[in-house]
Amino acid sequence: MNYNLLKGKRGIVFGALNEQSIAWKVAERAVEEGAIITLSNTPVAVRMGDTDELGKKLNAEILPADATNVEDLEMVFTKSMEILGGKIDFVLHSIGMSPNVRKKRTYDDLDYNLLDKTLDISAVSFHKMLQTGKKLDAIAEGGSVLALTYVAAQRSFVGYNDMADAKALLESITRSFGYIYGREKNVRINTISQSPTMTTAGSGIKGMADLYDFANRMSPIGNADADDCADYCIVMFSDLTRKVTMQNLYNDGGFSSMGMSLRAMKQYTNGCDEKDDDGNIIYG
Amino acid sequence: MNYNLLKGKRGIVFGALNEQSIAWKVAERAVEEGAIITLSNTPVAVRMGDTDELGKKLNAEILPADATNVEDLEMVFTKSMEILGGKIDFVLHSIGMSPNVRKKRTYDDLDYNLLDKTLDISAVSFHKMLQTGKKLDAIAEGGSVLALTYVAAQRSFVGYNDMADAKALLESITRSFGYIYGREKNVRINTISQSPTMTTAGSGIKGMADLYDFANRMSPIGNADADDCADYCIVMFSDLTRKVTMQNLYNDGGFSSMGMSLRAMKQYTNGCDEKDDDGNIIYG
Amino acid sequence: MNYNLLKGKRGIVFGALNEQSIAWKVAERAVEEGAIITLSNTPVAVRMGDTDELGKKLNAEILPADATNVEDLEMVFTKSMEILGGKIDFVLHSIGMSPNVRKKRTYDDLDYNLLDKTLDISAVSFHKMLQTGKKLDAIAEGGSVLALTYVAAQRSFVGYNDMADAKALLESITRSFGYIYGREKNVRINTISQSPTMTTAGSGIKGMADLYDFANRMSPIGNADADDCADYCIVMFSDLTRKVTMQNLYNDGGFSSMGMSLRAMKQYTNGCDEKDDDGNIIYG
Amino acid sequence: MNYNLLKGKRGIVFGALNEQSIAWKVAERAVEEGAIITLSNTPVAVRMGDTDELGKKLNAEILPADATNVEDLEMVFTKSMEILGGKIDFVLHSIGMSPNVRKKRTYDDLDYNLLDKTLDISAVSFHKMLQTGKKLDAIAEGGSVLALTYVAAQRSFVGYNDMADAKALLESITRSFGYIYGREKNVRINTISQSPTMTTAGSGIKGMADLYDFANRMSPIGNADADDCADYCIVMFSDLTRKVTMQNLYNDGGFSSMGMSLRAMKQYTNGCDEKDDDGNIIYG
Repeated sequence: MNYNLLKGKRGIVFGALNEQSIAWKVAERAVEEGAIITLSNTPVAVRMGDTDELGKKLNAEILPADATNVEDLEMVFTKSMEILGGKIDFVLHSIGMSPNVRKKRTYDDLDYNLLDKTLDISAVSFHKMLQTGKKLDAIAEGGSVLALTYVAAQRSFVGYNDMADAKALLESITRSFGYIYGREKNVRINTISQSPTMTTAGSGIKGMADLYDFANRMSPIGNADADDCADYCIVMFSDLTRKVTMQNLYNDGGFSSMGMSLRAMKQYTNGCDEKDDDGNIIYG
Repeated sequence: MNYNLLKGKRGIVFGALNEQSIAWKVAERAVEEGAIITLSNTPVAVRMGDTDELGKKLNAEILPADATNVEDLEMVFTKSMEILGGKIDFVLHSIGMSPNVRKKRTYDDLDYNLLDKTLDISAVSFHKMLQTGKKLDAIAEGGSVLALTYVAAQRSFVGYNDMADAKALLESITRSFGYIYGREKNVRINTISQSPTMTTAGSGIKGMADLYDFANRMSPIGNADADDCADYCIVMFSDLTRKVTMQNLYNDGGFSSMGMSLRAMKQYTNGCDEKDDDGNIIYG
Repeated sequence: MNYNLLKGKRGIVFGALNEQSIAWKVAERAVEEGAIITLSNTPVAVRMGDTDELGKKLNAEILPADATNVEDLEMVFTKSMEILGGKIDFVLHSIGMSPNVRKKRTYDDLDYNLLDKTLDISAVSFHKMLQTGKKLDAIAEGGSVLALTYVAAQRSFVGYNDMADAKALLESITRSFGYIYGREKNVRINTISQSPTMTTAGSGIKGMADLYDFANRMSPIGNADADDCADYCIVMFSDLTRKVTMQNLYNDGGFSSMGMSLRAMKQYTNGCDEKDDDGNIIYG
Repeated sequence: MNYNLLKGKRGIVFGALNEQSIAWKVAERAVEEGAIITLSNTPVAVRMGDTDELGKKLNAEILPADATNVEDLEMVFTKSMEILGGKIDFVLHSIGMSPNVRKKRTYDDLDYNLLDKTLDISAVSFHKMLQTGKKLDAIAEGGSVLALTYVAAQRSFVGYNDMADAKALLESITRSFGYIYGREKNVRINTISQSPTMTTAGSGIKGMADLYDFANRMSPIGNADADDCADYCIVMFSDLTRKVTMQNLYNDGGFSSMGMSLRAMKQYTNGCDEKDDDGNIIYG
């Protein structure tokens, strides 16, 4: 599948760790669709993960950087423009981590230094990316910037902890900066709110398998996976969505608009009848 | 419990069928709080239900009326003003019914004449009530009008069928008329979005017991019952909420802001651990 | 611009009146992107409008039909499958009209027969389309159905009148049927909520020019026009958005996420300073 | 006006600076309604403001504290329980400040140390308050906690800057902690989203007078003032709203549900006709 949707476009993809990563799939699909890109991740992730392999495969330079560090981000934008030969048309922010979750601090026993880190890594880094890009005038007129988020920004999910607050902050930054960057450079900024996804990060969340199952049965079309997300990102980077900005876009098989599905309820009750006496699906 | 919150106020309560009805509780609480009221329901409901009993208890006249009939509504407003001695300060619309649900038509096999009825009874009746009240100038400056709704207007619940659409329409009418009646008479119009409630109407919904259980385990404070709803209605009818209008107010123990709770997940998985090895609640 | 995004796909486009119509642009773009389509509109619209011209240009058969009439819809689906040689992959519903607005009935003086018509034409027709399609099993597995809507479904706009309620109902039907059709056939159903657009229908709305100007100054990227909308529809019909369903997608230059912009405020106050004493843009 | 709604209840009010403050009005109304309270504010605010005067008037002890400092918050809860003779039934968080706004840093030129401060003061302080309260088991079963917010958390307002992000974070904390504290102690946690209010803090916002005017003309019932807000807080602290939690409650005369009003549009266009030729209000 290749539509040349990103032909001639230059992009930066932050956060590709290994082939489970959504960012990994986005990088692959972007190149398939004709883009040239650079890849960035933290120095540790570059060392520990398979980013090198991806870089070779896609002929994409890897720029190790701490996305919470403005100077590192300046380097990424400056070098990317040099390497790719012009201003950047699209950026993916696929970065998030909660040290409180890692340390198994419950939400009513947060360590506030760690909370600062959660917010800085998972949300403020997006502002830094945008502010740096804008100061360097590195993002092309009409460019498209995406960050990945989760519906926990709107509704509370057990175990998602302070990442919920980080995602809410991330989505607010999207709107706030979307206004500024839109009015001045027609740059659109959106978030994609993805189904629970079996990435390395996702798998780390406590009770992920159960949550995945619940979301899957609640969602009429089932959970969206990393490939689905990559396709949606391509569309949002393309010229076909030039007026879409400041939005939170759900890629979730319908989960966000569900209150209770038949399938999830059946599992919930272990006995709710799906069919009536004549074998027809009941109600609707 | 009596705070005199509605002392000297005149109200009309539509939809009290029997003592399970939310409208019944609202009528009782309104009188407790110092209001004088009239009661209205369909002629059939008045005959079949216990409205008479409530009328006697509260010393409230009963005005049988079809809320989809503008002339009947004119009668209710006109007579209520006569009986109560002045303009109406508050109105409760607790009316809803889906003939498609009654006839067990699934949502992909709706009878469109019945859908018209669902919408007319459950939503358009609210517009008729407001338009009639306004034409007769029957609602006092700063008055308060409430309708009851359900979160199915925002998210899809199996079995709720065309009532979901009716509730969405009802909430839109609340905003649309809230603008008009607010700017001209400072009348506020809101909906209260209530937990699943074990009323006669509620019990009729397929799978209600399961839905009730799910909502209860999802809601941190548990489902709100008819008494809780009556208290919230009193507050919204009082002078303490004079600037609140065009809102959909959730009275649901937190359900609407939940994605997944520990308690519901435990029931869902029949095995998710609530405690860690030391017996502490996990995560948060 | 042509990406072959709809190569081999079959579609039905309802509501193309003339070349200002959004549906007209969608039809053109769909064919450009490789689809084969049929066109449908009311018999009157087909007679009065330029649909014939479009049909010739796109080599698309025109199927006059009243979208509120189930038999007509059956004919459209049945004939479309015959003509196009298989099940339908995408459908556009671009239909809406308020006889109350036409008759200049204010929202607090609605004619209820006309309100029924508004709801039937602008919202229930979408349910009829979906139910008919599903009963005939006319929509292909994984198909995509779109309806056009407006932010008045969420917020009250002076003059939009009962169309606001119709749009809220339309969006609810999208969710309700999206659940059913998603779980059974992976068909996705979404609405696109478009900027005020200078179509024949749009121009008929009282104060449209002022509203257009306000929306344009509020939206960081400016109003989306019919071409922008057509591009977004193509994307939603394509295979790149297979897990997006039950959503209301804003194509509005950011309007829906704005509270107040500098540009709109400047016009509002006729004097708010955009620059500080040194000529820099103030705040942000 | 006194309904004894808070008779016998104990409360803490954070953020009363002077008689323009919303917190000041809340403190006064809470005592009027029968509560006993303590007051807290930063040491600087206590020195510079009129909190002492309020304390004397209400017979309320003043506990100077930095709400970003956990030890200070422990002191406030501990002393409040001693002084008031038991667990705390209600808490008001009326705290917010952006050093970036003060330093006139635009949103695309934020100082990140100052952004940390904005978030810490305006949002994380609420988490600290709740976590501290819970660890000390200082909030009574069924207690009620409120924070004040603004619609800029949902929509972008020019000049509101990083306070928008802080408010989004605050509202997320409300949901996240609302889940935890609700399930364990039935404590409800909500935000009230208030109209632009002419407090000392509000007046400091650039273009406040214009924004106030716009909001007032957009809102059918006009802006809610500090007294209106105090009334709403009382209601939310009372026993009549025990199942309302994790909500963001608009007290704004309808602003949040408006897209464009006749009054605001008239000012916007300086010429849009409000009346038709016969002097009747047009449309609606």
